[in-house]
Amino acid sequence: MKILTIIGSSRENGNTEFLLNQAMQNVEHTQIRLNDYHIEPITDMRHTEEGFSPIDDDYEALLEQFLNHDLIIFVSPIYWFGMTGQMKLFFDRWSQYMRDERFEFKDKVKGKKAYVITAGGSNPYITGLPMIQQFGHIFDFVGMSFIDYVIGHAVKPGEIKEDPLALDKMNTWNQTLRNLSVPS
Amino acid sequence: MKILTIIGSSRENGNTEFLLNQAMQNVEHTQIRLNDYHIEPITDMRHTEEGFSPIDDDYEALLEQFLNHDLIIFVSPIYWFGMTGQMKLFFDRWSQYMRDERFEFKDKVKGKKAYVITAGGSNPYITGLPMIQQFGHIFDFVGMSFIDYVIGHAVKPGEIKEDPLALDKMNTWNQTLRNLSVPS
Amino acid sequence: MKILTIIGSSRENGNTEFLLNQAMQNVEHTQIRLNDYHIEPITDMRHTEEGFSPIDDDYEALLEQFLNHDLIIFVSPIYWFGMTGQMKLFFDRWSQYMRDERFEFKDKVKGKKAYVITAGGSNPYITGLPMIQQFGHIFDFVGMSFIDYVIGHAVKPGEIKEDPLALDKMNTWNQTLRNLSVPS
Amino acid sequence: MKILTIIGSSRENGNTEFLLNQAMQNVEHTQIRLNDYHIEPITDMRHTEEGFSPIDDDYEALLEQFLNHDLIIFVSPIYWFGMTGQMKLFFDRWSQYMRDERFEFKDKVKGKKAYVITAGGSNPYITGLPMIQQFGHIFDFVGMSFIDYVIGHAVKPGEIKEDPLALDKMNTWNQTLRNLSVPS
Repeated sequence: MKILTIIGSSRENGNTEFLLNQAMQNVEHTQIRLNDYHIEPITDMRHTEEGFSPIDDDYEALLEQFLNHDLIIFVSPIYWFGMTGQMKLFFDRWSQYMRDERFEFKDKVKGKKAYVITAGGSNPYITGLPMIQQFGHIFDFVGMSFIDYVIGHAVKPGEIKEDPLALDKMNTWNQTLRNLSVPS
Repeated sequence: MKILTIIGSSRENGNTEFLLNQAMQNVEHTQIRLNDYHIEPITDMRHTEEGFSPIDDDYEALLEQFLNHDLIIFVSPIYWFGMTGQMKLFFDRWSQYMRDERFEFKDKVKGKKAYVITAGGSNPYITGLPMIQQFGHIFDFVGMSFIDYVIGHAVKPGEIKEDPLALDKMNTWNQTLRNLSVPS
Repeated sequence: MKILTIIGSSRENGNTEFLLNQAMQNVEHTQIRLNDYHIEPITDMRHTEEGFSPIDDDYEALLEQFLNHDLIIFVSPIYWFGMTGQMKLFFDRWSQYMRDERFEFKDKVKGKKAYVITAGGSNPYITGLPMIQQFGHIFDFVGMSFIDYVIGHAVKPGEIKEDPLALDKMNTWNQTLRNLSVPS
Repeated sequence: MKILTIIGSSRENGNTEFLLNQAMQNVEHTQIRLNDYHIEPITDMRHTEEGFSPIDDDYEALLEQFLNHDLIIFVSPIYWFGMTGQMKLFFDRWSQYMRDERFEFKDKVKGKKAYVITAGGSNPYITGLPMIQQFGHIFDFVGMSFIDYVIGHAVKPGEIKEDPLALDKMNTWNQTLRNLSVPS
């Protein structure tokens, strides 16, 4: 199973990335940091005659990576009780490429396994749940399997190290992911 | 009461905008279409020594408009079971300016009244609720009052005209807003 | 269309019932007050050899009423951020009768239209949403259509009269329901 | 810290109870099975002159147990996308005793630690979240700390043994609980 991690954080080495690194020890995978790419917001042209126009940004390369992997780990801190804008831009553009025959999006996305890693403050185990529900609806809509998620309690850099439940879960994931991964 | 509408749609004259127009008939207000502005994704520098750097985009002008009004109507279609990326970028940058003394963000935001207009398909009255909860958490966090929201059922252009409950609600809002508005 | 209202409140003439009465003016319908019936909590016997035993209470009569109507309005105040225990007992027993051939539950329930009326305090437009999501999941699971819901803001008796949005919605429903109702 | 487990299941030795037993190995605690007690649904008398009347059931003994412990583990399978009716009846009656001076409910409940164990089918990691949100709102309202929850994926008896993530979490809890428990 080819594994991809998609990091939507705006800073490097943050709390969600710490969790990710725990889960990925000795797991073969590809990693994408959305901040390294230029992604334009979608312009919805679904209902126009001319349809979507090509956009001059890095999205298509990202999308190909996404479509060519079988298990995706989405990593985003909780920003304002939702995924980061960076990551939302990534999903929004799906609406454009679902209809683009070059990508066979609908066929390829179906059956992919999804994990979500997030962290935040302000009672995140409760206030983070609408975001988890959103991921759930997204994955349901396109036929991906939402395997699991973790919500860490951490705001300041490094604070996640004091969340034993989140760390334990990452160890458990690590066992599973080691068995699933293959050279990509 | 000075009223501001913030439109996060990526296309003009969509279903959420139709609802908005119903609500705003003869209501004095300022209107912002986020798509007309350039907003950079946030880079989280809260925990660095140097703090946030100035960003070369249109955000500060938008923020001033936001802070200078008393009642805000947020307008966004449901994209992938959440607000549009455009609108999420708007909120994410709050994290930067909450700490910027020039803006007195925390004082000014407190007590503002908020409305949300959204619309979508795929059983939006249920699948749209995590997004409404997210708005609720955002407004709670900064001390705004979440007055009301409407979820329209519409995907194709114009489809919202067949949602009588949403239209009725806009008429009700219109009565209220007419009484509240003052020349801004 | 045969219309049934199921009231799960523990007191008469409360705020949810006030909303209901607005919606039902001149609408032919049957009304059930769960408090007038004795409903035992379910004992889950799905996975036992002997299966469910007959229960000596009023449930089967209630269930027949439910199954013989086409449009159901569920009425429950928000108690502890959910439907009342009385109403939950009503749903829990579905698990018993879904498997009871005498009732043809699965066939009959499919396609029924559902409305929910609720009211509460403590920021009910947000904190009431998990309960609405729960109703949404229930109706999805059995194939009912969740037409609409109203969340009134009211705790003390009569307080609902000061919630104009809820009252307006009831007027809108009333127009629809008058057209749909037939002598039952 | 005195630990109490409150089981709301309608059958013994179910999947949630299996999880509970894993978490409680060698942990000193008191256990309550709601099904062994008679709990009447609440009749809301908050707004009447006469107030609440004494109810002839087992509730007060249960409530005393609840109030006399410091850390409570609520155990309920997901029935119809919510806690069992049995458990909801337990919470609903809080409204009666919050106002009963004999119990000092508000003072005593504040600061208690809460855990929730649940399990179900039909995509429980998503469809179980409204129930977790409900618990979150309940605990927030009375000032309890919602420490953690686990949602197991299991419908048939014993199926929970195939949910490694849930089992791992119970081991983690067990370490914590062993350290916290004291002879009660």
